[in-house]
Amino acid sequence: MGLSFGVIGYGYWGPNLARNIFEEDEARLTMIADQRQARLKLAAKRFPHIDLVEDSADVIRSPKTDAVVIATPVKTHYALAKAALEQGKHVLIEKPLTASVAEAEELVNLAEQKNRTLMVDHTFVYTGAVRMIHKLLESGEIGNPLYFDSMRVNLGLFQSDVNVLWDLAPHDVSIMDFLFQRSPVGLTASGSTHFGSRHENIAFMTVFYPDHLVAHINVSWISPVKIRLMLIGGDKKMIVYDDTEPSEKVKVYDRGVDMKNNGQNEESVYDILVQYRIGSMQAPRLEAMEALRMEIRHFLDCVKNGDRPQTDGRAGMRVVQILEAAARSIKQRGAFQELNLE
Amino acid sequence: MGLSFGVIGYGYWGPNLARNIFEEDEARLTMIADQRQARLKLAAKRFPHIDLVEDSADVIRSPKTDAVVIATPVKTHYALAKAALEQGKHVLIEKPLTASVAEAEELVNLAEQKNRTLMVDHTFVYTGAVRMIHKLLESGEIGNPLYFDSMRVNLGLFQSDVNVLWDLAPHDVSIMDFLFQRSPVGLTASGSTHFGSRHENIAFMTVFYPDHLVAHINVSWISPVKIRLMLIGGDKKMIVYDDTEPSEKVKVYDRGVDMKNNGQNEESVYDILVQYRIGSMQAPRLEAMEALRMEIRHFLDCVKNGDRPQTDGRAGMRVVQILEAAARSIKQRGAFQELNLE
Amino acid sequence: MGLSFGVIGYGYWGPNLARNIFEEDEARLTMIADQRQARLKLAAKRFPHIDLVEDSADVIRSPKTDAVVIATPVKTHYALAKAALEQGKHVLIEKPLTASVAEAEELVNLAEQKNRTLMVDHTFVYTGAVRMIHKLLESGEIGNPLYFDSMRVNLGLFQSDVNVLWDLAPHDVSIMDFLFQRSPVGLTASGSTHFGSRHENIAFMTVFYPDHLVAHINVSWISPVKIRLMLIGGDKKMIVYDDTEPSEKVKVYDRGVDMKNNGQNEESVYDILVQYRIGSMQAPRLEAMEALRMEIRHFLDCVKNGDRPQTDGRAGMRVVQILEAAARSIKQRGAFQELNLE
Amino acid sequence: MGLSFGVIGYGYWGPNLARNIFEEDEARLTMIADQRQARLKLAAKRFPHIDLVEDSADVIRSPKTDAVVIATPVKTHYALAKAALEQGKHVLIEKPLTASVAEAEELVNLAEQKNRTLMVDHTFVYTGAVRMIHKLLESGEIGNPLYFDSMRVNLGLFQSDVNVLWDLAPHDVSIMDFLFQRSPVGLTASGSTHFGSRHENIAFMTVFYPDHLVAHINVSWISPVKIRLMLIGGDKKMIVYDDTEPSEKVKVYDRGVDMKNNGQNEESVYDILVQYRIGSMQAPRLEAMEALRMEIRHFLDCVKNGDRPQTDGRAGMRVVQILEAAARSIKQRGAFQELNLE
Repeated sequence: MGLSFGVIGYGYWGPNLARNIFEEDEARLTMIADQRQARLKLAAKRFPHIDLVEDSADVIRSPKTDAVVIATPVKTHYALAKAALEQGKHVLIEKPLTASVAEAEELVNLAEQKNRTLMVDHTFVYTGAVRMIHKLLESGEIGNPLYFDSMRVNLGLFQSDVNVLWDLAPHDVSIMDFLFQRSPVGLTASGSTHFGSRHENIAFMTVFYPDHLVAHINVSWISPVKIRLMLIGGDKKMIVYDDTEPSEKVKVYDRGVDMKNNGQNEESVYDILVQYRIGSMQAPRLEAMEALRMEIRHFLDCVKNGDRPQTDGRAGMRVVQILEAAARSIKQRGAFQELNLE
Repeated sequence: MGLSFGVIGYGYWGPNLARNIFEEDEARLTMIADQRQARLKLAAKRFPHIDLVEDSADVIRSPKTDAVVIATPVKTHYALAKAALEQGKHVLIEKPLTASVAEAEELVNLAEQKNRTLMVDHTFVYTGAVRMIHKLLESGEIGNPLYFDSMRVNLGLFQSDVNVLWDLAPHDVSIMDFLFQRSPVGLTASGSTHFGSRHENIAFMTVFYPDHLVAHINVSWISPVKIRLMLIGGDKKMIVYDDTEPSEKVKVYDRGVDMKNNGQNEESVYDILVQYRIGSMQAPRLEAMEALRMEIRHFLDCVKNGDRPQTDGRAGMRVVQILEAAARSIKQRGAFQELNLE
Repeated sequence: MGLSFGVIGYGYWGPNLARNIFEEDEARLTMIADQRQARLKLAAKRFPHIDLVEDSADVIRSPKTDAVVIATPVKTHYALAKAALEQGKHVLIEKPLTASVAEAEELVNLAEQKNRTLMVDHTFVYTGAVRMIHKLLESGEIGNPLYFDSMRVNLGLFQSDVNVLWDLAPHDVSIMDFLFQRSPVGLTASGSTHFGSRHENIAFMTVFYPDHLVAHINVSWISPVKIRLMLIGGDKKMIVYDDTEPSEKVKVYDRGVDMKNNGQNEESVYDILVQYRIGSMQAPRLEAMEALRMEIRHFLDCVKNGDRPQTDGRAGMRVVQILEAAARSIKQRGAFQELNLE
Repeated sequence: MGLSFGVIGYGYWGPNLARNIFEEDEARLTMIADQRQARLKLAAKRFPHIDLVEDSADVIRSPKTDAVVIATPVKTHYALAKAALEQGKHVLIEKPLTASVAEAEELVNLAEQKNRTLMVDHTFVYTGAVRMIHKLLESGEIGNPLYFDSMRVNLGLFQSDVNVLWDLAPHDVSIMDFLFQRSPVGLTASGSTHFGSRHENIAFMTVFYPDHLVAHINVSWISPVKIRLMLIGGDKKMIVYDDTEPSEKVKVYDRGVDMKNNGQNEESVYDILVQYRIGSMQAPRLEAMEALRMEIRHFLDCVKNGDRPQTDGRAGMRVVQILEAAARSIKQRGAFQELNLE
């Protein structure tokens, strides 16, 4: 029959989760909760057969749901996920996991104690593009990673409860977490607020890893154009990932730098210290499956086999640790924050 | 007859300066100096009639030069410019003006004392693109500026004597200086080094101005692709300036944000605080003249009329002040540096 | 209650039509017919409440349908539309209207005789982009149209019953019909077949109008990349319409040519006869509504008010007349075909 | 000492040829002729040491020139080249070779009789991009070529003595001649004139080769944007060559079509006859040398070794044969013209 799902929150992202669960053969969408009648009406038109409720507690307590999907604002995540885990439900939760590290830690421990799957919807980790980049890094083709530089800006969706960093940067931080599988040592961040908002609508963050690997994230809600651009440089090859491209999203450049022995000319003023390697470029074919579909299947597999998801609660907690440190750095106008991720 | 020019340094940028002086009717190119025979040989092929010397002092002392153009590495700028000004020559000097604020200040004072024109080759200030953006800001069409966000990355030209910030960021900082004509209050910066270099090859800087105007600069020598992208947002319109576009480099978007009275719905979780305005986009026609040509003409005018150049020594000094503060911030891993520009 | 619709054909395009009818408040989707069980199963998942039948005749005869939507292969259009009109149903039919002019004419006459709405799904006519271009031409801003040049190529969807011209060119021909509202005088066409097919998979057509207006269409099923590019030149301004752009699909260039009196220099060999005007470019804001939604609403309005649709049967017949003439020209290796559209 | 060159015509293209000859070590630029004083003045500024004359006959007769470069309007090509060959000079001549096939044939025969090198400046044949495409075709990687589709449009340079086909299409036809090295069997062409000109400013041509290989060329002087796009499809891989790209001009797509045995489903209306192969894309590194430089070197080699140039007089004649046939087809409104190239 398949695992039964209840979705809490049918706003911007919830409908995508609901549709993918609905279309997946191994899953059953049984309930949707939203406080707003207009959203429930919309859900009713698309899913006339399932239970539609206002109170999220109904979804959490119902025997009709094996798993609960939480697609509500960040500040509500902790309480909903906690209640669901306590009821013995598996939980798939929108990013970021929680509004604080303390909350994240409690959920992670609770899930382990209850032996339930807690997975964070770090959607990009399940895209063909990011999985291909992961594979290229794993295989050694890129060499040692030198930098990760992401620009994620557009006009849109000021949120009432978080700043742009909590809204957009989880995508980048979760990708970094998945790609590099190493712990950053610290970060510095800055940002600015406009239009009388209390929350930053433009922010920048630099995250330092061992061995000079550096990651930079530029997020904004007030860009006139939508940019989704990542540069990932290794000492062998370099990657450009442009998510706005309809195809060829990932391009691998056989370009790089070779150090030149420059001893004898040290005093020469225009001396170039390095040589450039400019080779061909390749755009590998990417898996075509929709990321959410692949994510739902991974969730189903993890529940079935008791496996740890690639974006489990601990990954979600690491993302929150970085966001929390970035928020402190912004308040301290760029002051360095050491990181000691779990 | 026109002003006579001697060019010191015939490496990467010097030939462009020399060619533009040569082709300008009001100017005469009379001398070129470079320590390297190979470079002099190249100059001889192109300019068989002019004096070619190894020693820059010959250019500075020669009665054949009214003005000296300095296109040598940064660390040599101060001594060469000082000697030229002391000889009563007008000076056009490559960016950045000097390697330190102290040096810059001395040159500025010396030029004023000697009543000679000291102009910094902040080339971008003379492009049709930047002049159009300036005009759009001046006219009020953009509204109050909210942010300036520049990405200037490519593979190339590691320099032996400076880091990437001193090499590439002067372009952006001089554009900011020209566009906003206001003093920043502080900055934070970060960066990373690779390939065993002592100098950063990738760096990020956030500069804070009064009234929440924020500027962000991302520079790199180790990007597989060349990006020259600036976003400039105002509270009325927003600009995208892509210098790699063959035409339509500057696009003006009638896009922005209007705050919405949201009082009664404060508890509603998905409430959007703002409304977006998505109007048309316009790419204004830009002046087609080569920037260096316009710059040379401006230099000639300033010398002739005793006017202060748009990119005078003080503008050059302000750029160096920001670079110096950024270098300190990088060393202190992002610590905020207050700025009090002259 | 709204008009009730039955959709015949739930293959590639039918689901889009069905979805838009389903989501439109003034319409009711009541039946879907498809000969293939797999397609019906898919329809059942999405629309569990409606009647799903194998035999299209059931849709045509059912009292549950006021209007019949035909989304089947071209060769079946005539018989299905004829049967539906004879049953007194309104008909919305996928492009091209029929496989021959004779069939088209019969349907047009039948619809008039039965006083029923016959509308062809020339989808592009209902896009914000084409409607904006129409407005720009109507207003005189573009001046007299000089040319229309469309490239519509991609890898894909060889069809068993028609060549690439019948598959893709109806889009362009219907756009031309809508934009220029004048009759072409003739055409020439060419094409080629590959992979052992009987049908052209790449084809080119030039259509001549009075006053030197010329239209050119380039269609292909064997391009490695998807291109949807139209250039439309007037003697005042010129338009580039790139349908693959996520935004700014339509760009209006203040560019053109002014003739120069060149009498006295006639013998001069390099003399340029013309002057170019290079002004600004503007990308107007387009209506955001999905084209099919707008089309369905237009169909509903026409049925309700007895109006003639913008893409009525006669427009569909004109498109078929051009396709038929092009097929003859291809067979005659480019020979000119005179056109006398009704 | 190197071969000595005189350049006739210092208009639009002549300066590029002169500069490349000047900078080539094995060549000497000794004379330039142009009827216009303003052009000679410009040449004098750049090349103060060489002979500048008004009369082209001076260049042709001078003992200072071993080779004559002809960069004048098409209608003057025949007489100038004939005179130069008769004087025993080698000739490098701008495309198209002549204004008629008869003229071309005479020049080809004269060059052979005089044993002199006659080479046509089919510049694109010497670009890194076209040479790479040639290599890809030669190696079999692309498979059997199916089509060649070129769009070459921009705003500009109406010429007084020829139409757009004679101006722009030689680029494409010479590339086809180089790439496919087989004889076309016929062609059809069409075009239109505007702005009161006698000459077409927009034209289209379809050229048929054996084995269903088809070439299509779209040229225009009245496009608001510059497009230089070629699609070249083989039955194994397909190429996109975009000459406006600053890098990655040539992209090789592992995309194509495989025929599917479809026998049993013939009656099924939506049946797809083919399968698509969507693999990776590769952009090979291209030779960076300027095309004209490579061309000049090739000319020098051919003169020295008595080799036949890759773009010899016969290649030039084949291009003129196609242009002449296209002109006839345009006059006959698309009528097919058989081709029997030498």
